[in-house]
Amino acid sequence: MCQLLGMNCNVPTDIVFSFTGFAMRGGRTDTHHDGWGIAFFEGAGVRHFVDHQAAVDSPVATLIKTYPIKSRNVIAHIRKATQGEVALENCHPFVRELWGRYWVFAHNGDLKAFDPVLDGAFRPVGTTDSERAFCYLLQELRRRFGDTRPALAALEAALAELVPAIAAHGTFNMMLSDGTALFAHCSTSLHYLVRQHPFDTAILSDEDVRVDFSQVTTPNDRVAIIVTQPLTTNERWTAFGPGELLCFVDGLPQQRS
Amino acid sequence: MCQLLGMNCNVPTDIVFSFTGFAMRGGRTDTHHDGWGIAFFEGAGVRHFVDHQAAVDSPVATLIKTYPIKSRNVIAHIRKATQGEVALENCHPFVRELWGRYWVFAHNGDLKAFDPVLDGAFRPVGTTDSERAFCYLLQELRRRFGDTRPALAALEAALAELVPAIAAHGTFNMMLSDGTALFAHCSTSLHYLVRQHPFDTAILSDEDVRVDFSQVTTPNDRVAIIVTQPLTTNERWTAFGPGELLCFVDGLPQQRS
Repeated sequence: MCQLLGMNCNVPTDIVFSFTGFAMRGGRTDTHHDGWGIAFFEGAGVRHFVDHQAAVDSPVATLIKTYPIKSRNVIAHIRKATQGEVALENCHPFVRELWGRYWVFAHNGDLKAFDPVLDGAFRPVGTTDSERAFCYLLQELRRRFGDTRPALAALEAALAELVPAIAAHGTFNMMLSDGTALFAHCSTSLHYLVRQHPFDTAILSDEDVRVDFSQVTTPNDRVAIIVTQPLTTNERWTAFGPGELLCFVDGLPQQRS
Repeated sequence: MCQLLGMNCNVPTDIVFSFTGFAMRGGRTDTHHDGWGIAFFEGAGVRHFVDHQAAVDSPVATLIKTYPIKSRNVIAHIRKATQGEVALENCHPFVRELWGRYWVFAHNGDLKAFDPVLDGAFRPVGTTDSERAFCYLLQELRRRFGDTRPALAALEAALAELVPAIAAHGTFNMMLSDGTALFAHCSTSLHYLVRQHPFDTAILSDEDVRVDFSQVTTPNDRVAIIVTQPLTTNERWTAFGPGELLCFVDGLPQQRS
């Protein structure tokens, strides 16, 4: 199994604090040492970092922890291999283009006997069940909506049909974003919190680090953090229910229409 | 205009030396300060770094200069914007998946009135003529060969037809790789050299750095470096002819069959 970290905000925000705690689980406070990755949207562009070294040992992870890249949508992943060898092409998150936008996807879990027909438009490069699921999701979205991105509600409704069919094959905790919204689905474990005014101090559970967010934010900032296991000891995290799919926009989970 | 740097080798090799000189042109020894990027193949996987800061100021470029990522195929680019604003989504190289492999592309030049019909399979995310040309190339390759990657000779023959049609719209110095071969086309300026046994010392032209490659190689290593303008002062670089398309495999330009 692996661990997931996502961030969705109303203004570009850096993820240094959360990533610092999360990366400790990549080989130090937890055993996810078979690679890691992170993708940051900046406008329509994506910065994509993957490494098959453990996150605690990776010079690229050190860069992320010290270089405050500001983004409104981030997805990160630390890997403990279940399917697919330890290789760069099997590191999450994966990136593909659909409708003239990049899509980023990461998965925690294990899919059994998941072998959908892929028509060739999106084909896995590596050998994971996860990348297969991502390619299938994009293929089916394109099949439903053709060459034009639908409105968010239609997209969410389509995912609400497609995702459970994949999740039926096993465990499918996943995050998916096109840079405007972040979708998160829970099979077994996913938690979120929304940080907004009045901001307070947060204390990491995996390392002796605390940040007083009131010093580094404006009253209008709103940041949702979504993660496999809560990252801080003094904040109230909300657990997803099994089978729950949430869509985050501007730092808030949307009410399903 | 921009500058391009490519490397194609028979064994995984780091590009620290060449990138160090090349990155100086991103704002110091030359004026290409509108972003930069580099993509390294590792097996079928790709490490892709882009930044819209000047390469000389970029913490990510500093990482590349100090962290020896070993790769058999690398494409790098420093940008001076001609078409498309300075934004992350307009930074080269671009990456897409075709036939279950990642393809990496970078372009130096300017295409006028280049507006091909794109059927939606590969669509630009940014606003550059370059990404449009890349999407068109992949679309046409897929149209010719369907869902299966052809043999290298057939691929090269197809590119030898497609590339001149694009180049007719202006200047199309470009590099393209799927991690097995590196294709390079020259409209106006491209040079290459092949380093192989017996290796010697090379001296950068853009910074006071020299490397004795005999100390860091084995007699079997072979490395082709392809670049807009020669990077070293004491080696013999071969200039591409206008309209010349070369395919590099295992560190050698292939003879067209």
